[in-house]
Amino acid sequence: MKKKLLAVGLFFAGAGVALFAQEAYGIEEALSMIWLFVGAILVFIMQAGFALVETGLTRAKNATNIVMKNLMDFCFGAIVYWAVGWGFMYGSVGDAPGKFIGLSEFFKGPMDDPSFHRDWFFQVVFAATAATIVSGAMAERVQFRCYLVYTCFISALIYPISGHWIWGGGWLSDLGFHDFAGSTVVHSVGGWAALVGALVLGPRIGKYVKTPDGKISVKAFPGHNMPLAMLGVLLLWFGWYGFNGASTLDGMSPDIARVCVTTTLAAAAGTIGALFTSWILFKKPDASMSMNGALAGLVSITAPCAVVSPAASIIIGLIGGILVVLAVEFIDKVLKIDDPVGASSVHLVCGVWGTVAVGIWGNVEGSAIGLLHGGGFSQLGVQLVGILAVGAWTFCTSFILFSIIKATMGLRVDPKEERMGLDISEHKAEAYTGFQIFSNM
Amino acid sequence: MKKKLLAVGLFFAGAGVALFAQEAYGIEEALSMIWLFVGAILVFIMQAGFALVETGLTRAKNATNIVMKNLMDFCFGAIVYWAVGWGFMYGSVGDAPGKFIGLSEFFKGPMDDPSFHRDWFFQVVFAATAATIVSGAMAERVQFRCYLVYTCFISALIYPISGHWIWGGGWLSDLGFHDFAGSTVVHSVGGWAALVGALVLGPRIGKYVKTPDGKISVKAFPGHNMPLAMLGVLLLWFGWYGFNGASTLDGMSPDIARVCVTTTLAAAAGTIGALFTSWILFKKPDASMSMNGALAGLVSITAPCAVVSPAASIIIGLIGGILVVLAVEFIDKVLKIDDPVGASSVHLVCGVWGTVAVGIWGNVEGSAIGLLHGGGFSQLGVQLVGILAVGAWTFCTSFILFSIIKATMGLRVDPKEERMGLDISEHKAEAYTGFQIFSNM
Amino acid sequence: MKKKLLAVGLFFAGAGVALFAQEAYGIEEALSMIWLFVGAILVFIMQAGFALVETGLTRAKNATNIVMKNLMDFCFGAIVYWAVGWGFMYGSVGDAPGKFIGLSEFFKGPMDDPSFHRDWFFQVVFAATAATIVSGAMAERVQFRCYLVYTCFISALIYPISGHWIWGGGWLSDLGFHDFAGSTVVHSVGGWAALVGALVLGPRIGKYVKTPDGKISVKAFPGHNMPLAMLGVLLLWFGWYGFNGASTLDGMSPDIARVCVTTTLAAAAGTIGALFTSWILFKKPDASMSMNGALAGLVSITAPCAVVSPAASIIIGLIGGILVVLAVEFIDKVLKIDDPVGASSVHLVCGVWGTVAVGIWGNVEGSAIGLLHGGGFSQLGVQLVGILAVGAWTFCTSFILFSIIKATMGLRVDPKEERMGLDISEHKAEAYTGFQIFSNM
Repeated sequence: MKKKLLAVGLFFAGAGVALFAQEAYGIEEALSMIWLFVGAILVFIMQAGFALVETGLTRAKNATNIVMKNLMDFCFGAIVYWAVGWGFMYGSVGDAPGKFIGLSEFFKGPMDDPSFHRDWFFQVVFAATAATIVSGAMAERVQFRCYLVYTCFISALIYPISGHWIWGGGWLSDLGFHDFAGSTVVHSVGGWAALVGALVLGPRIGKYVKTPDGKISVKAFPGHNMPLAMLGVLLLWFGWYGFNGASTLDGMSPDIARVCVTTTLAAAAGTIGALFTSWILFKKPDASMSMNGALAGLVSITAPCAVVSPAASIIIGLIGGILVVLAVEFIDKVLKIDDPVGASSVHLVCGVWGTVAVGIWGNVEGSAIGLLHGGGFSQLGVQLVGILAVGAWTFCTSFILFSIIKATMGLRVDPKEERMGLDISEHKAEAYTGFQIFSNM
Repeated sequence: MKKKLLAVGLFFAGAGVALFAQEAYGIEEALSMIWLFVGAILVFIMQAGFALVETGLTRAKNATNIVMKNLMDFCFGAIVYWAVGWGFMYGSVGDAPGKFIGLSEFFKGPMDDPSFHRDWFFQVVFAATAATIVSGAMAERVQFRCYLVYTCFISALIYPISGHWIWGGGWLSDLGFHDFAGSTVVHSVGGWAALVGALVLGPRIGKYVKTPDGKISVKAFPGHNMPLAMLGVLLLWFGWYGFNGASTLDGMSPDIARVCVTTTLAAAAGTIGALFTSWILFKKPDASMSMNGALAGLVSITAPCAVVSPAASIIIGLIGGILVVLAVEFIDKVLKIDDPVGASSVHLVCGVWGTVAVGIWGNVEGSAIGLLHGGGFSQLGVQLVGILAVGAWTFCTSFILFSIIKATMGLRVDPKEERMGLDISEHKAEAYTGFQIFSNM
Repeated sequence: MKKKLLAVGLFFAGAGVALFAQEAYGIEEALSMIWLFVGAILVFIMQAGFALVETGLTRAKNATNIVMKNLMDFCFGAIVYWAVGWGFMYGSVGDAPGKFIGLSEFFKGPMDDPSFHRDWFFQVVFAATAATIVSGAMAERVQFRCYLVYTCFISALIYPISGHWIWGGGWLSDLGFHDFAGSTVVHSVGGWAALVGALVLGPRIGKYVKTPDGKISVKAFPGHNMPLAMLGVLLLWFGWYGFNGASTLDGMSPDIARVCVTTTLAAAAGTIGALFTSWILFKKPDASMSMNGALAGLVSITAPCAVVSPAASIIIGLIGGILVVLAVEFIDKVLKIDDPVGASSVHLVCGVWGTVAVGIWGNVEGSAIGLLHGGGFSQLGVQLVGILAVGAWTFCTSFILFSIIKATMGLRVDPKEERMGLDISEHKAEAYTGFQIFSNM
């Protein structure tokens, strides 16, 4: 009798456990779904952040054109990333992920594949971030239709292929390259393409002018809307919590908390670094440099955010903030490449710096990889290999892409249109109808 | 001895199971609470999106008035939706939900009813969305105090009653009408009211002018701030992830992932559809049309987002984006109804389109309802019944409402005030003090 | 045989339970982590809300300066709050939380302390809120470098110490002082410092002018961008859902739902209260008063949001909205303290009101504390003690702080710089390059 009771009790206990085994599994999946949803939409709103920063830091006569480019790179990017980009990045070759490229999962159609849908949604916003970085560097002079062509290629091909090497199971991933949320995968790819785009396109009219004594005078074109630019920076910072935080990919990960702290402190330190650097160099606390300093801190901490301490994140961000001011000056005054919003300084220079920082301060649980934690030079070496490989890939492919567009479509608007402003010449509408605006060339 | 041990072990095992039975239940509830919270606040920020789109696409002299209307329709709407709207929409008649109206749960007071609080919070932001759609169509000429009266009635009566038919357990819900997140419930209700409001109010001064040869010339009043309008579009898109995503109502639903993908792709395709349509029709890639294209894609996918494939969502969005451009032209040039921001084209036309699309591509798990999936015409028929019923209800009630307001309070500001701008005439304050602005009538 | 089977079954059952004991625990922790993450980033975006409200409600010539102050108070605040602020607020003295101050946990370095990281991230955004409230009151005339000094002290010392009394286990917490999300801890601290800052700094040039007949004429300086100010208000409201909602600190709490409802209704009622009060007093539905009314409702409900009914929240918000208009008039016209954006009226007056409201309507589950629920005057008395203690602390320390800065660094820009605008004089860059702006002094 007692045995029977025991057996019955046990049956229910066992059934209960089985039931909760399944339910608990479902809950974890649901939690990660919500976590990636929150992360993805935060990264999505970074599109607004980029649009506002770029608009605010350029001239009023090109404002409509800039926000149109920013809207369109997301829209075209989403479609092509669904069609082929995802397949190149996360597809496989045969049964294994390819070393250099994925070749499956194109035009993914089935309705009932929640984990594909969840992962695609989280990844498409990263692809769009890489693509949109470039628009700032090419602002105020690129043809709208050429920009549409460019953006399809970066989202369909350039970004996914180097992304495959690192996040898709390719050769850099095999080497142990560490880039938690994309200092290299996303930001330096966008930054390289931005630099090449600005280079192939050439400077805006009046930017570098030969003076009678043979020297070249460098003119600054101040932005037309600082509050909008600042709102853009804060929206980017806000979205970056999703960018870095949700890159745990797992809603159950306690690393989320650390990532939030390091992201916050690095961004704060980057802002302060750029503030004081600009204050010393230019004798004023410069607004656009400070804003770029915040972004510099964020880009710098993107690779190492999960594997460094709060104190290290302050140092990494601070150096990023100092670097960005020096890089803006160097690219503008020495290289004489006209990048109107400093996109290559923020995303390329600090993207590289953040990737290097992993090799210096990295301290993964259970195994120290950073130089300062006794990890030696091996991780640092791997980081440099990744930086160089992704740089070479992106530099070459985007150089070829922009050169072909230039040769076939022209790439740049004609000088008359550029002087008139792209809002009128490209879209036949002013951004600020009714406002008295000086033509400030 | 062993039996005793077994019994003790079993006791703890059983107790553990019981404990976790309760806890696991609590966790699912908590997860859905957080999910609906995230969804609701995302829908809340759409209020800012609407405010900016409408402000950006109208003239500077009415900017304060527009943002005031947008703030107030949420505030008045929230109070009346708490007082009576919720009761009409989700209340019951006796023990059952009424066929046509709910009649309980008014002025709901008790503190300890988390599921009511959760559901009310999620629903109030939808009610406010329907209400605020109208403000754009009535922009630049409606009396502020009349707008306040209107907004109380739509949030208290018009929206909740047709909403009850579909989401509150009423007759359309019994028929099997499918509107996942509200193409009809929310957007077409707002769109019908917008169209009727613009119709009863009449066009802005100078919009349709008889030329000496007896023809009517249609004037365009360009918006005054494209970057703000674009920010508004991106905030709406951002918020739409909550609008569509959290309409699963269940944080455990794997459908969340699919909804995110279809929402993204439809919005992208809608933008592209409107871009090329405007490019072909007007020989320029038009900014305000492209922005409306993004919204068109979003409205179109709102009803079918959970029951269509990614590929179908691209087609649905693309058609929505083409439709919105044609609808704006038709309503403006042929019907000669002056809807300054295209609210009726976006929310009514695409709301109808999205509801129809369910009957074409709908493919609910386990039973195909769409025409293209072998579901025949039955679902399509039900969708049309719902569209017509809600259209007739909203058209008639809002026509009566606006007519009574017009007869008693005047509805429209006088021509001198309209020319001066509503910021000065209604609120005695300019929106942009200090800026030199041309009076652009 | 049967026994063996039973034993084996029991082993698995027990193991299963043990496993899920751990997992279920982990899920609750993960849920709270995500909940606090969502809450914290929502509070973070309130920084953008404050920046836009303050920018929109002041003059165009100071717009860059204002957004720079808002960016910097977060950045400097985050670093010092990590270094020492957190330790003063949540540290302990020996084994117990100190009565008056915490004295441990400075420069917290270890990587592997998820609960510290989570809590710090949630708290730093509250500290930054208190700090940034002050910038509006000191707008258009404070030296940038002095503002940086001020902000370090409020985030490192003033805010954390009174915060310790209430949220850190100090003497007010022992007394039973109730301030759920910080009407007193955050808002009245910011509000007091704002009032003192405006007082020590003195009014803007031209604000209070002696007329020939010996009277003092009070001039209004209208804000320069109402749409941006409104966007700021909506971003603040949006972020407030995190501020109040996530102050449950526990993702499992069903109180979340009630907090959302009371927060929504109080903000709506506050807006309506201020709208009608301004309409009656000034014969117009005033935009900036209505916006401050929304914020007034939000500040008022911050302390009581978790312990009052929906109906009570409407009354509390409504009174807050009426109070804020009267307070703005009183501080401006009677006290003649120049607080350009009404920060002290919103955050101090309504912060006090919300804290008092707990003692009137408070109805904590299982024990009524509010006067109207039979709780007598005891809770009300405790609330007043807290209000007075925190007021005295903040008034005195910020008075000393601003006085020392004034004596040593000057605090205020010189009159020529003030007339020119702080964008040019402090940052050598206009906010709106290219726009024709009247110098409106």
